[in-house]
Amino acid sequence: MSDFQVTARTQIKRLPKRGHYDRQTVYQILDTAFVCHVGFSVNGQPYVIPTNYGRTGDTLYLHGSAASRMLKALSAGVPVCVTVTHVDGLVLARSAFHHSVNYRSVVILGSVRLVEDPTEKMEALRIFTNHVMKGRWDDVRQPTEQELKATTVLVLPLEEVSAKVRTGGPNDDEPDYALPVWAGVLPLETVAREPIPDPQRKNDPPVPQYLRNYSR
Amino acid sequence: MSDFQVTARTQIKRLPKRGHYDRQTVYQILDTAFVCHVGFSVNGQPYVIPTNYGRTGDTLYLHGSAASRMLKALSAGVPVCVTVTHVDGLVLARSAFHHSVNYRSVVILGSVRLVEDPTEKMEALRIFTNHVMKGRWDDVRQPTEQELKATTVLVLPLEEVSAKVRTGGPNDDEPDYALPVWAGVLPLETVAREPIPDPQRKNDPPVPQYLRNYSR
Repeated sequence: MSDFQVTARTQIKRLPKRGHYDRQTVYQILDTAFVCHVGFSVNGQPYVIPTNYGRTGDTLYLHGSAASRMLKALSAGVPVCVTVTHVDGLVLARSAFHHSVNYRSVVILGSVRLVEDPTEKMEALRIFTNHVMKGRWDDVRQPTEQELKATTVLVLPLEEVSAKVRTGGPNDDEPDYALPVWAGVLPLETVAREPIPDPQRKNDPPVPQYLRNYSR
Repeated sequence: MSDFQVTARTQIKRLPKRGHYDRQTVYQILDTAFVCHVGFSVNGQPYVIPTNYGRTGDTLYLHGSAASRMLKALSAGVPVCVTVTHVDGLVLARSAFHHSVNYRSVVILGSVRLVEDPTEKMEALRIFTNHVMKGRWDDVRQPTEQELKATTVLVLPLEEVSAKVRTGGPNDDEPDYALPVWAGVLPLETVAREPIPDPQRKNDPPVPQYLRNYSR
């Protein structure tokens, strides 16, 4: 897969070896997560709000209530930054200075387009829902016309994009390796626990396969 | 513990029941995480960058390389937003529309102060290190004068702060409860795996207790 074009704004300057601009790396990071942090400014004050997303090709979908302040601000076409981060482990070095974190992150710059066509909106919601929980869309009651109207769907094109990845153990200063300090990596992972059925349920459908085997 | 003062910028308008402004809720969310997303603007473009932090009282510490673009921008005193998010579960409703996520998040608005006094800087790094890994500071080689100089430490006071929390199962529309769709919560949790010792080690100190029992 081809690379995203590097711009002055997306080029990783600090520790450039950690920078990645290829679609494969970017897609993998985006597709194994479902929460992003959206940054935008209102009256000069930046806000960073966690929200869900879906991806297909070079398109990221965001959605929310038509009444949301964030969605209203974004719909106006202001510059936006969407960041997705996985934390894979704590890197424990022999010196405080060389402690680090293993992580994978993607930063997307741009501005959004409001999806108004109902067919495109429905398709975006399908992609969005199946991004968060693969296979869920076909099992559930799909949006009514009124629900569609109450939902704002936004498209952020993947154009100005970079990924940053750190892996591996600590990099200590040479003399520090002799210190009697435990050093290495504490791997961190997000896991799914046993699904908890809704206490308000009126029937007991089987737990779907996509929930039993949930992993990203 | 007392509440943070609610401002027009921190008041939760959408789903106000999810809003919390008390120090206990805010501290708990901040202390059980160690990665935040920092939002700031450069030339009108917002950036959202993941980084670590530490907290004590109403003080949040950020740090990084003195060469970092983010730290340089922040040190100039521009408005900043720091957001911390826990994702606790996927909420699966019977309709696509009522799907949700259980989460806990804190949003902090303000601007940072650069820590220049070496004693304060060292103390900030101690708090920072022990926030990420409780007890680690006393085990490791502490920063040299040169390392201190190469590290920028910033203070963000907790003044304009809000938390947002969603818990519990799905809230479906009444007629949808009859649908034969599995509904409930898929709990998600971040867990630590077995510590991996540094392959470059020259001795084998025991794995510290704080690593064996790591949980937040």
